[in-house]
Amino acid sequence: MRAGGIAIGIVAPASRLEAPLAEKTIELARALYPGRSVELRFHPQCFLSSGHFAGDDETRARAFLEVANDESIDALWFARGGYGSGRLTERVLAGLTPAAGGKTYLGYSDAGALLAALYARGFDGLAHGPMPADLRRDGGEAAVKRALDFLVDRAPRALEPTVSTAGLTAAFNITVLSHLLGTPWQPDLTGHVLMLEEVSEHMYRIDRALRHITANPAIRRVAGIRLGRCSAIPANEPDFGQTAEQLVRHWCEASGIRYLGTADIGHDIDNKVVPFGRLRLA
Amino acid sequence: MRAGGIAIGIVAPASRLEAPLAEKTIELARALYPGRSVELRFHPQCFLSSGHFAGDDETRARAFLEVANDESIDALWFARGGYGSGRLTERVLAGLTPAAGGKTYLGYSDAGALLAALYARGFDGLAHGPMPADLRRDGGEAAVKRALDFLVDRAPRALEPTVSTAGLTAAFNITVLSHLLGTPWQPDLTGHVLMLEEVSEHMYRIDRALRHITANPAIRRVAGIRLGRCSAIPANEPDFGQTAEQLVRHWCEASGIRYLGTADIGHDIDNKVVPFGRLRLA
Repeated sequence: MRAGGIAIGIVAPASRLEAPLAEKTIELARALYPGRSVELRFHPQCFLSSGHFAGDDETRARAFLEVANDESIDALWFARGGYGSGRLTERVLAGLTPAAGGKTYLGYSDAGALLAALYARGFDGLAHGPMPADLRRDGGEAAVKRALDFLVDRAPRALEPTVSTAGLTAAFNITVLSHLLGTPWQPDLTGHVLMLEEVSEHMYRIDRALRHITANPAIRRVAGIRLGRCSAIPANEPDFGQTAEQLVRHWCEASGIRYLGTADIGHDIDNKVVPFGRLRLA
Repeated sequence: MRAGGIAIGIVAPASRLEAPLAEKTIELARALYPGRSVELRFHPQCFLSSGHFAGDDETRARAFLEVANDESIDALWFARGGYGSGRLTERVLAGLTPAAGGKTYLGYSDAGALLAALYARGFDGLAHGPMPADLRRDGGEAAVKRALDFLVDRAPRALEPTVSTAGLTAAFNITVLSHLLGTPWQPDLTGHVLMLEEVSEHMYRIDRALRHITANPAIRRVAGIRLGRCSAIPANEPDFGQTAEQLVRHWCEASGIRYLGTADIGHDIDNKVVPFGRLRLA
């Protein structure tokens, strides 16, 4: 962070962000940090639309790289999840310059596909946490404030409570991590506490993805798994008869991975920040 | 096949089969093969129920092994897909006896999880094709007759038209194959024509899984990919703007895999049989 201020660049490598949410985020930051230079730069790409995505792959990757490689920007904040970050992996990895390595990167859900690839590349400023699009939730200001608290001040209160400087951590959406397994961008999570969360997936899909994750030999080298919240689960037909925590306990036991309890993360306003790797306080 | 007849054992390693469908399948076989000994043995496990599954994991695995290891049975026919076969992999692999190796195994969709594991184990009688549960479809008799045509007579007309004794083939449901990547049961498909199909998945999910599959270094050693039918695709919000074939062409090009055109497989009554490996005629 430069003396006296911070510049945060926002891009949308997946789905588009509604422009009013950008305005609302900027107002929120202005109210939170009176007299301090906390600059939010929403890249115009955030508001583009190309089918499912906020612009085509080339446009989204270029915007990501413009922000990542900009020496005047301290942090890259993912505007939103949805789907599409993982389509940009090769383009992004091929275009990174040294300026990209010194930044903080914050996002979750679909953003995990790029966070994973950057972590595999050796970046050490990555974190799983709220995004501007969380303002769409009732009470979403709490989540966005927490993200800013982490980005601007590295406030410990923004962190998932079990995160400490003593150990390694990482957090992923279950489905996103499942789709990284067996690719060149599967991150090495040896010795990490792996926190997992999910939203809007049937219980049988959660079960299938947890089985997938815990069957991967490299994932079996984690220090343990913590389960965040699995929310908005559609009804299973027939009823699945087990909770997500029962499933994760089952697959941890079957795979010899330690189950460490719950994690305070999820697709909700209480979603806490989880740094990738070892926590570095400001 | 023993002289004068064939015995086909049916199990349900995933979801349960409705009993009337078993009766209907037996009647169909009786009508198709008058004067021939074509015996269909539905394991009682097919009709059990335990939450999402046709009995718990232990029960389903035991039934699978009873049929697979029975020397008086020539073929193991998966009753139905759904979800659950992949939960049995370790139990099944640990319990197989030499009698299991000489059989034909036929199924598709979720059954691919076990077919893959058996193929990785070196089994050479595996095939992707219709199951008794296809009788639930309008005109489903055509699919079940085709499966029997393959199981009983190895009839070439049952085969996907590009299958020949000249090359290696395999077929999978896209989501099922995606969930095998990076596990010990990912089959070696080097030099195979890989046929893929899907049902009831949003276009963004098909895209994500195709990206996953084509990013896997071992999958990149296939001879090429053929796309079967992707049916019952729920509406994407917003419209995805691309067809499944456009997506598979995109990912094949991006990954250096040859796209070979369409395959005559899918979750429908026209679903043809695709042997795993090299076709062996009776």
